[in-house]
Amino acid sequence: MTLEEIGGLVKRAEVASLGFLDEEGNPGVRKVFSTWHKGLGVHYISTNTSSMHVQALLKNDRACLYFDDCKTFEAVCFTGKAIVHFEREYKELLWNEGDERYYPGGVEDEDYCVVEFIAERGRYYRFDGKGDISGEELATFDRGAEMKNYA
Amino acid sequence: MTLEEIGGLVKRAEVASLGFLDEEGNPGVRKVFSTWHKGLGVHYISTNTSSMHVQALLKNDRACLYFDDCKTFEAVCFTGKAIVHFEREYKELLWNEGDERYYPGGVEDEDYCVVEFIAERGRYYRFDGKGDISGEELATFDRGAEMKNYA
Repeated sequence: MTLEEIGGLVKRAEVASLGFLDEEGNPGVRKVFSTWHKGLGVHYISTNTSSMHVQALLKNDRACLYFDDCKTFEAVCFTGKAIVHFEREYKELLWNEGDERYYPGGVEDEDYCVVEFIAERGRYYRFDGKGDISGEELATFDRGAEMKNYA
Repeated sequence: MTLEEIGGLVKRAEVASLGFLDEEGNPGVRKVFSTWHKGLGVHYISTNTSSMHVQALLKNDRACLYFDDCKTFEAVCFTGKAIVHFEREYKELLWNEGDERYYPGGVEDEDYCVVEFIAERGRYYRFDGKGDISGEELATFDRGAEMKNYA
């Protein structure tokens, strides 16, 4: 797969599987909505502060983010770190009309936060082959990329 | 969710997200076919010995297995360990007609193995609430359960 094709897979996907580590070092997985991307390597996820994965990421930022398309048999798993943001700029940007259902306190709701996942490398899978994506390749590909919602 | 409802979710699912740890301790995720179950707590996955997740599990058996149904907004993540089997009994049982496409050497192909995931606990999610499943609850529920293919 080319980096362009992997980018297409990421933009098409609405959800991703977030991998994290619990306090005992066990791997955990949660499905998350992931439609905000900055290039191939940086992804933003709005979620509940109180959720187990956010609490885990606040203690250990090692994470992975897996996107796949079961119709085309394409998948990519990025490995990197996650930063949990409580700053209003992130929370405002990712806020959607109707999110009061989930966060009654609105944008300032303490249970609302934004996880920024930053890839350090990746690995892709398709019927015609698999391979690694280096941090350098990601950095070169993402030069000048802007944060954008592909929902 | 009741354990019966969680069992229904697992049996309906054809794929699951397997969480594991790489050599540096980073979480990794791969989508796997998972249709063989023994009750709620034990799941069998046929896969490639050479794949990154099998090589990682051979070094560190900590794992998780996440099943979800995006239509009903139900999900469960089991935490536990993974055992990689090369014994013929497992490989024969999970062998499907046509698997020669993936494993040209047939049942005895060295690149073919069976991962047994054994849950120690779980956590479920649904629109109407989330909660923990203890190891004791799993053991009680699974008493007398048989290994079966729900494909």
